[in-house]
Amino acid sequence: MNFSPAIEDLIQALRCLPGVGPKSAQRMTLHLLERDRAGADNLAAALLDAVNKVDHCQRCRNFTELDICEICIDPRRDTSIICVVETPADVLAVEMSGSFKGIYYVLMGHLSPIDGIGPEEIGLDRFHRRVVEEGVSEVILATNPTVEGEATAYYLIDLLQGDGVKVSRIAHGVPLGGELEYVDGSTLAHALTGRRQVE
Amino acid sequence: MNFSPAIEDLIQALRCLPGVGPKSAQRMTLHLLERDRAGADNLAAALLDAVNKVDHCQRCRNFTELDICEICIDPRRDTSIICVVETPADVLAVEMSGSFKGIYYVLMGHLSPIDGIGPEEIGLDRFHRRVVEEGVSEVILATNPTVEGEATAYYLIDLLQGDGVKVSRIAHGVPLGGELEYVDGSTLAHALTGRRQVE
Repeated sequence: MNFSPAIEDLIQALRCLPGVGPKSAQRMTLHLLERDRAGADNLAAALLDAVNKVDHCQRCRNFTELDICEICIDPRRDTSIICVVETPADVLAVEMSGSFKGIYYVLMGHLSPIDGIGPEEIGLDRFHRRVVEEGVSEVILATNPTVEGEATAYYLIDLLQGDGVKVSRIAHGVPLGGELEYVDGSTLAHALTGRRQVE
Repeated sequence: MNFSPAIEDLIQALRCLPGVGPKSAQRMTLHLLERDRAGADNLAAALLDAVNKVDHCQRCRNFTELDICEICIDPRRDTSIICVVETPADVLAVEMSGSFKGIYYVLMGHLSPIDGIGPEEIGLDRFHRRVVEEGVSEVILATNPTVEGEATAYYLIDLLQGDGVKVSRIAHGVPLGGELEYVDGSTLAHALTGRRQVE
Protein backbone atom coordinates (compact mmCIF):
# COMPACT_ATOMS: atom_id res chain seq x y z
CA MET A 1 0.00 0.00 0.00
CA ASN A 2 1.20 3.48 -0.85
CA PHE A 3 0.02 7.01 -0.35
CA SER A 4 -1.90 8.58 -3.24
CA PRO A 5 0.15 9.51 -6.37
CA ALA A 6 0.40 13.26 -5.63
CA ILE A 7 1.71 12.49 -2.14
CA GLU A 8 4.20 9.90 -3.42
CA ASP A 9 5.38 12.38 -6.08
CA LEU A 10 6.01 15.05 -3.45
CA ILE A 11 7.91 12.59 -1.23
CA GLN A 12 10.04 11.69 -4.25
CA ALA A 13 10.58 15.33 -5.27
CA LEU A 14 11.74 16.34 -1.78
CA ARG A 15 14.56 13.80 -2.05
CA CYS A 16 16.42 16.19 -4.38
CA LEU A 17 17.27 18.18 -1.24
CA PRO A 18 20.65 17.25 0.23
CA GLY A 19 20.40 15.26 3.46
CA VAL A 20 16.77 14.26 2.90
CA GLY A 21 16.15 10.50 2.80
CA PRO A 22 12.88 8.58 2.30
CA LYS A 23 11.75 8.86 5.93
CA SER A 24 12.39 12.60 6.28
CA ALA A 25 10.79 13.23 2.89
CA GLN A 26 7.66 11.41 4.09
CA ARG A 27 7.66 13.33 7.37
CA MET A 28 8.06 16.65 5.52
CA THR A 29 5.27 15.81 3.07
CA LEU A 30 2.78 14.84 5.77
CA HIS A 31 3.76 17.86 7.87
CA LEU A 32 3.12 20.22 4.95
CA LEU A 33 -0.21 18.61 4.02
CA GLU A 34 -1.46 18.34 7.61
CA ARG A 35 -0.25 21.57 9.07
CA ASP A 36 1.34 23.99 6.65
CA ARG A 37 -0.27 24.14 3.22
CA ALA A 38 0.43 27.88 3.05
CA GLY A 39 4.10 27.11 3.68
CA ALA A 40 4.06 24.60 0.81
CA ASP A 41 2.53 27.16 -1.58
CA ASN A 42 5.05 29.72 -0.46
CA LEU A 43 7.93 27.27 -0.90
CA ALA A 44 6.79 26.42 -4.43
CA ALA A 45 6.69 30.13 -5.34
CA ALA A 46 10.11 30.78 -3.80
CA LEU A 47 11.64 27.86 -5.71
CA LEU A 48 10.31 29.08 -9.06
CA ASP A 49 11.31 32.64 -8.28
CA ALA A 50 14.87 31.71 -7.34
CA VAL A 51 15.35 29.41 -10.33
CA ASN A 52 14.07 32.09 -12.71
CA LYS A 53 15.78 35.14 -11.25
CA VAL A 54 19.12 33.95 -9.92
CA ASP A 55 21.99 33.72 -12.37
CA HIS A 56 25.75 34.17 -12.26
CA CYS A 57 27.46 37.56 -12.03
CA GLN A 58 29.18 38.18 -15.37
CA ARG A 59 32.35 39.27 -13.60
CA CYS A 60 32.78 37.08 -10.52
CA ARG A 61 30.37 34.18 -11.24
CA ASN A 62 28.73 34.59 -7.83
CA PHE A 63 24.93 34.22 -7.66
CA THR A 64 23.06 37.44 -8.35
CA GLU A 65 19.78 38.71 -9.75
CA LEU A 66 21.60 41.51 -11.61
CA ASP A 67 24.02 41.30 -14.54
CA ILE A 68 26.93 42.37 -12.33
CA CYS A 69 26.64 41.58 -8.61
CA GLU A 70 26.52 44.13 -5.82
CA ILE A 71 30.06 43.46 -4.69
CA CYS A 72 31.62 43.82 -8.17
CA ILE A 73 29.72 47.08 -8.78
CA ASP A 74 30.49 48.61 -5.35
CA PRO A 75 32.89 51.57 -5.90
CA ARG A 76 34.28 51.25 -2.36
CA ARG A 77 35.79 47.85 -3.06
CA ASP A 78 39.39 47.48 -4.13
CA THR A 79 39.21 45.80 -7.54
CA SER A 80 42.95 45.16 -7.64
CA ILE A 81 42.70 42.37 -5.04
CA ILE A 82 40.74 39.27 -6.01
CA CYS A 83 39.89 36.52 -3.55
CA VAL A 84 39.25 33.16 -5.26
CA VAL A 85 36.69 30.94 -3.49
CA GLU A 86 34.82 27.78 -4.41
CA THR A 87 31.19 28.66 -3.65
CA PRO A 88 28.77 31.53 -2.92
CA ALA A 89 28.61 30.31 0.69
CA ASP A 90 32.37 30.94 0.95
CA VAL A 91 31.86 34.54 -0.24
CA LEU A 92 29.31 35.00 2.53
CA ALA A 93 31.71 33.51 5.10
CA VAL A 94 34.56 35.86 4.08
CA GLU A 95 32.18 38.85 4.01
CA MET A 96 30.95 37.96 7.50
CA SER A 97 34.53 38.15 8.79
CA GLY A 98 34.47 41.82 7.76
CA SER A 99 38.18 41.76 6.97
CA PHE A 100 38.26 41.83 3.19
CA LYS A 101 37.61 44.85 1.00
CA GLY A 102 38.65 43.47 -2.39
CA ILE A 103 36.44 41.56 -4.83
CA TYR A 104 35.84 37.87 -5.45
CA TYR A 105 36.03 35.23 -8.11
CA VAL A 106 33.74 32.28 -7.46
CA LEU A 107 34.78 29.03 -9.12
CA MET A 108 31.42 27.33 -8.41
CA GLY A 109 33.35 24.17 -7.69
CA HIS A 110 36.90 22.89 -7.83
CA LEU A 111 39.07 20.93 -10.25
CA SER A 112 37.91 17.33 -10.27
CA PRO A 113 39.08 15.51 -13.40
CA ILE A 114 37.30 12.34 -12.32
CA ASP A 115 33.93 14.17 -12.60
CA GLY A 116 34.97 15.83 -15.85
CA ILE A 117 35.52 19.20 -14.19
CA GLY A 118 38.60 20.78 -15.73
CA PRO A 119 39.96 24.37 -15.69
CA GLU A 120 37.41 25.58 -18.25
CA GLU A 121 34.37 24.33 -16.33
CA ILE A 122 35.32 26.42 -13.29
CA GLY A 123 36.21 29.45 -15.45
CA LEU A 124 39.96 29.48 -14.82
CA ASP A 125 40.81 30.55 -18.39
CA ARG A 126 38.47 33.52 -18.14
CA PHE A 127 39.90 34.37 -14.74
CA HIS A 128 43.46 34.24 -16.08
CA ARG A 129 42.62 36.57 -18.99
CA ARG A 130 41.01 38.99 -16.61
CA VAL A 131 43.96 39.04 -14.20
CA VAL A 132 46.31 39.83 -17.09
CA GLU A 133 44.08 42.41 -18.80
CA GLU A 134 42.98 44.32 -15.73
CA GLY A 135 46.35 44.58 -14.01
CA VAL A 136 45.26 42.88 -10.81
CA SER A 137 47.86 43.32 -8.04
CA GLU A 138 47.07 40.37 -5.77
CA VAL A 139 45.18 37.08 -6.04
CA ILE A 140 44.28 35.50 -2.68
CA LEU A 141 43.55 31.78 -2.94
CA ALA A 142 40.84 30.79 -0.48
CA THR A 143 39.83 27.40 -1.88
CA ASN A 144 39.01 24.75 0.70
CA PRO A 145 41.85 22.87 2.40
CA THR A 146 40.71 19.60 0.80
CA VAL A 147 42.54 17.53 -1.80
CA GLU A 148 40.52 19.09 -4.64
CA GLY A 149 40.74 22.59 -3.21
CA GLU A 150 44.51 22.30 -2.83
CA ALA A 151 44.87 20.92 -6.36
CA THR A 152 42.84 23.88 -7.67
CA ALA A 153 45.03 26.31 -5.72
CA TYR A 154 48.24 24.78 -7.09
CA TYR A 155 46.85 24.87 -10.63
CA LEU A 156 46.13 28.59 -10.20
CA ILE A 157 49.59 29.24 -8.75
CA ASP A 158 51.12 27.60 -11.86
CA LEU A 159 48.78 29.48 -14.18
CA LEU A 160 49.55 32.90 -12.70
CA GLN A 161 53.30 32.40 -12.48
CA GLY A 162 55.13 34.83 -14.72
CA ASP A 163 52.21 37.27 -14.91
CA GLY A 164 53.82 39.55 -12.34
CA VAL A 165 50.84 39.22 -10.00
CA LYS A 166 51.28 38.52 -6.29
CA VAL A 167 49.60 35.23 -5.36
CA SER A 168 48.85 34.35 -1.73
CA ARG A 169 47.07 31.53 0.09
CA ILE A 170 45.00 32.11 3.24
CA ALA A 171 46.64 30.75 6.39
CA HIS A 172 45.73 27.29 7.64
CA GLY A 173 46.27 26.48 11.29
CA VAL A 174 44.65 26.13 14.67
CA PRO A 175 41.21 27.82 14.72
CA LEU A 176 40.64 30.48 17.38
CA GLY A 177 38.92 29.05 20.44
CA GLY A 178 40.07 25.55 19.44
CA GLU A 179 42.08 23.46 21.86
CA LEU A 180 45.37 22.00 20.64
CA GLU A 181 44.39 18.68 22.15
CA TYR A 182 41.47 18.32 19.75
CA VAL A 183 43.10 19.67 16.59
CA ASP A 184 43.96 17.01 14.02
CA GLY A 185 47.54 16.22 13.10
CA SER A 186 47.64 17.70 9.61
CA THR A 187 46.19 21.01 10.81
CA LEU A 188 48.84 21.14 13.55
CA ALA A 189 51.54 20.32 11.00
CA HIS A 190 50.24 23.24 8.87
CA ALA A 191 50.20 25.50 11.93
CA LEU A 192 53.82 24.62 12.73
CA THR A 193 55.10 25.03 9.17
CA GLY A 194 53.29 28.34 8.89
CA ARG A 195 54.61 29.71 12.21
CA ARG A 196 55.61 33.36 12.30
CA GLN A 197 58.33 35.01 14.32
CA VAL A 198 57.06 37.19 17.15
CA GLU A 199 58.37 40.71 16.74
CA MET B 1 26.08 41.09 3.64
CA ASN B 2 23.33 38.76 2.48
CA PHE B 3 22.54 36.70 -0.56
CA SER B 4 20.25 38.29 -3.15
CA PRO B 5 16.53 38.60 -2.20
CA ALA B 6 15.30 35.61 -4.23
CA ILE B 7 17.95 33.41 -2.57
CA GLU B 8 17.16 34.70 0.92
CA ASP B 9 13.43 34.13 0.26
CA LEU B 10 14.08 30.53 -0.74
CA ILE B 11 16.26 29.93 2.35
CA GLN B 12 13.44 31.33 4.48
CA ALA B 13 10.73 29.33 2.66
CA LEU B 14 12.62 26.04 3.13
CA ARG B 15 12.48 26.55 6.90
CA CYS B 16 8.80 25.54 6.86
CA LEU B 17 10.06 21.95 6.46
CA PRO B 18 10.37 20.12 9.78
CA GLY B 19 13.96 19.61 10.91
CA VAL B 20 15.39 22.26 8.58
CA GLY B 21 17.28 25.06 10.33
CA PRO B 22 19.00 28.13 8.85
CA LYS B 23 22.23 26.28 7.94
CA SER B 24 20.54 23.34 6.21
CA ALA B 25 18.16 25.70 4.41
CA GLN B 26 21.15 27.62 3.06
CA ARG B 27 22.89 24.41 2.02
CA MET B 28 19.73 23.16 0.29
CA THR B 29 19.23 26.46 -1.54
CA LEU B 30 22.79 26.63 -2.83
CA HIS B 31 22.71 22.96 -3.79
CA LEU B 32 19.52 23.45 -5.84
CA LEU B 33 20.81 26.60 -7.57
CA GLU B 34 24.28 25.21 -8.25
CA ARG B 35 23.51 21.67 -9.18
CA ASP B 36 19.84 20.80 -9.45
CA ARG B 37 17.63 23.49 -10.96
CA ALA B 38 15.52 20.82 -12.65
CA GLY B 39 14.97 19.26 -9.22
CA ALA B 40 13.85 22.64 -7.87
CA ASP B 41 11.33 23.09 -10.71
CA ASN B 42 10.08 19.58 -10.19
CA LEU B 43 9.76 20.11 -6.43
CA ALA B 44 7.76 23.32 -6.96
CA ALA B 45 5.36 21.50 -9.30
CA ALA B 46 4.99 18.55 -6.89
CA LEU B 47 4.23 20.91 -4.00
CA LEU B 48 1.50 22.74 -5.92
CA ASP B 49 0.09 19.49 -7.22
CA ALA B 50 -0.10 17.89 -3.78
CA VAL B 51 -1.61 20.96 -2.13
CA ASN B 52 -4.26 21.23 -4.85
CA LYS B 53 -5.16 17.58 -5.25
CA VAL B 54 -4.84 16.03 -1.81
CA ASP B 55 -7.78 16.35 0.54
CA HIS B 56 -9.36 14.28 3.28
CA CYS B 57 -11.43 11.17 2.62
CA GLN B 58 -15.04 12.00 3.50
CA ARG B 59 -15.39 8.78 5.45
CA CYS B 60 -12.09 8.12 7.23
CA ARG B 61 -10.38 11.55 7.01
CA ASN B 62 -7.21 9.95 5.58
CA PHE B 63 -5.42 11.83 2.79
CA THR B 64 -6.75 11.01 -0.68
CA GLU B 65 -7.16 12.53 -4.10
CA LEU B 66 -10.66 11.00 -4.41
CA ASP B 67 -13.83 11.82 -2.45
CA ILE B 68 -13.71 8.47 -0.69
CA CYS B 69 -10.28 6.84 -0.29
CA GLU B 70 -9.21 3.55 -1.82
CA ILE B 71 -9.40 1.70 1.47
CA CYS B 72 -12.92 2.87 2.31
CA ILE B 73 -14.26 1.87 -1.11
CA ASP B 74 -12.48 -1.47 -1.30
CA PRO B 75 -15.26 -4.13 -1.19
CA ARG B 76 -12.84 -6.70 0.23
CA ARG B 77 -12.40 -4.76 3.48
CA ASP B 78 -14.49 -5.53 6.53
CA THR B 79 -16.33 -2.28 7.25
CA SER B 80 -17.57 -3.50 10.62
CA ILE B 81 -14.12 -3.16 12.20
CA ILE B 82 -12.66 0.33 12.45
CA CYS B 83 -9.08 1.02 13.52
CA VAL B 84 -8.62 4.52 14.95
CA VAL B 85 -5.17 6.06 14.31
CA GLU B 86 -3.71 9.52 14.69
CA THR B 87 -2.10 10.16 11.29
CA PRO B 88 -1.92 8.95 7.65
CA ALA B 89 1.59 7.64 8.41
CA ASP B 90 0.03 5.35 11.04
CA VAL B 91 -2.39 3.97 8.41
CA LEU B 92 0.59 3.15 6.21
CA ALA B 93 2.38 1.46 9.14
CA VAL B 94 -0.63 -0.74 9.96
CA GLU B 95 -1.16 -1.56 6.26
CA MET B 96 2.50 -2.55 5.96
CA SER B 97 2.02 -5.08 8.77
CA GLY B 98 -0.48 -6.82 6.47
CA SER B 99 -2.53 -8.01 9.43
CA PHE B 100 -5.60 -5.79 9.30
CA LYS B 101 -8.49 -6.11 6.90
CA GLY B 102 -10.94 -3.65 8.42
CA ILE B 103 -11.12 0.10 7.69
CA TYR B 104 -9.64 3.13 9.41
CA TYR B 105 -10.60 6.38 11.03
CA VAL B 106 -7.79 8.95 10.99
CA LEU B 107 -8.02 11.59 13.70
CA MET B 108 -5.35 13.79 12.05
CA GLY B 109 -4.03 14.55 15.54
CA HIS B 110 -4.93 13.82 19.15
CA LEU B 111 -6.76 15.56 21.96
CA SER B 112 -4.65 18.46 23.18
CA PRO B 113 -6.75 21.00 25.10
CA ILE B 114 -3.71 23.22 25.63
CA ASP B 115 -3.48 23.74 21.83
CA GLY B 116 -7.24 24.19 21.52
CA ILE B 117 -7.71 20.73 20.00
CA GLY B 118 -10.87 19.24 21.46
CA PRO B 119 -13.05 16.24 20.41
CA GLU B 120 -14.65 18.18 17.55
CA GLU B 121 -11.35 19.21 15.93
CA ILE B 122 -10.31 15.57 15.56
CA GLY B 123 -13.76 14.52 14.37
CA LEU B 124 -14.76 12.39 17.37
CA ASP B 125 -18.41 13.50 17.28
CA ARG B 126 -18.68 12.48 13.62
CA PHE B 127 -16.96 9.20 14.39
CA HIS B 128 -19.34 8.48 17.27
CA ARG B 129 -22.41 9.11 15.09
CA ARG B 130 -21.03 6.84 12.44
CA VAL B 131 -20.30 3.99 14.85
CA VAL B 132 -23.87 4.16 16.15
CA GLU B 133 -25.57 4.55 12.76
CA GLU B 134 -23.60 1.94 10.85
CA GLY B 135 -23.69 -0.79 13.46
CA VAL B 136 -19.93 -1.17 13.72
CA SER B 137 -18.95 -4.31 15.61
CA GLU B 138 -15.47 -3.42 16.86
CA VAL B 139 -13.41 -0.27 17.31
CA ILE B 140 -9.65 -0.86 17.67
CA LEU B 141 -7.84 2.05 19.32
CA ALA B 142 -4.35 2.44 17.84
CA THR B 143 -3.49 5.94 19.00
CA ASN B 144 0.12 6.47 20.06
CA PRO B 145 1.23 5.33 23.52
CA THR B 146 1.95 8.97 24.51
CA VAL B 147 0.14 11.06 27.12
CA GLU B 148 -2.06 12.70 24.47
CA GLY B 149 -2.63 9.46 22.58
CA GLU B 150 -3.67 7.68 25.79
CA ALA B 151 -5.97 10.57 26.75
CA THR B 152 -7.59 10.37 23.31
CA ALA B 153 -8.03 6.60 23.67
CA TYR B 154 -9.66 6.97 27.11
CA TYR B 155 -11.96 9.70 25.80
CA LEU B 156 -13.08 7.35 23.01
CA ILE B 157 -13.59 4.47 25.45
CA ASP B 158 -15.87 6.73 27.53
CA LEU B 159 -17.69 7.97 24.45
CA LEU B 160 -18.42 4.51 23.07
CA GLN B 161 -19.47 2.97 26.37
CA GLY B 162 -23.09 1.92 26.30
CA ASP B 163 -23.25 1.81 22.49
CA GLY B 164 -22.92 -1.96 22.52
CA VAL B 165 -19.77 -1.84 20.41
CA LYS B 166 -16.67 -3.82 21.31
CA VAL B 167 -13.73 -1.50 21.99
CA SER B 168 -10.14 -2.78 22.06
CA ARG B 169 -6.70 -1.26 22.41
CA ILE B 170 -3.65 -2.60 20.53
CA ALA B 171 -1.16 -4.38 22.78
CA HIS B 172 1.80 -2.51 24.18
CA GLY B 173 4.85 -4.48 25.24
CA VAL B 174 8.32 -5.55 24.31
CA PRO B 175 8.92 -5.10 20.55
CA LEU B 176 10.00 -8.19 18.59
CA GLY B 177 13.76 -8.34 18.22
CA GLY B 178 14.17 -6.01 21.19
CA GLU B 179 16.28 -7.06 24.15
CA LEU B 180 14.70 -6.87 27.59
CA GLU B 181 17.84 -5.18 28.90
CA TYR B 182 17.24 -2.16 26.67
CA VAL B 183 13.48 -1.85 27.02
CA ASP B 184 12.36 1.07 29.20
CA GLY B 185 10.59 0.49 32.52
CA SER B 186 7.08 1.61 31.56
CA THR B 187 7.07 -0.59 28.46
CA LEU B 188 8.14 -3.55 30.60
CA ALA B 189 5.44 -2.71 33.14
CA HIS B 190 2.89 -2.71 30.27
CA ALA B 191 4.28 -6.02 29.00
CA LEU B 192 3.90 -7.59 32.44
CA THR B 193 0.38 -6.27 33.07
CA GLY B 194 -0.69 -7.42 29.62
CA ARG B 195 0.78 -10.93 29.99
CA ARG B 196 -1.23 -13.80 28.57
CA GLN B 197 -1.50 -17.34 29.83
CA VAL B 198 0.22 -19.90 27.63
CA GLU B 199 -2.24 -22.54 26.52
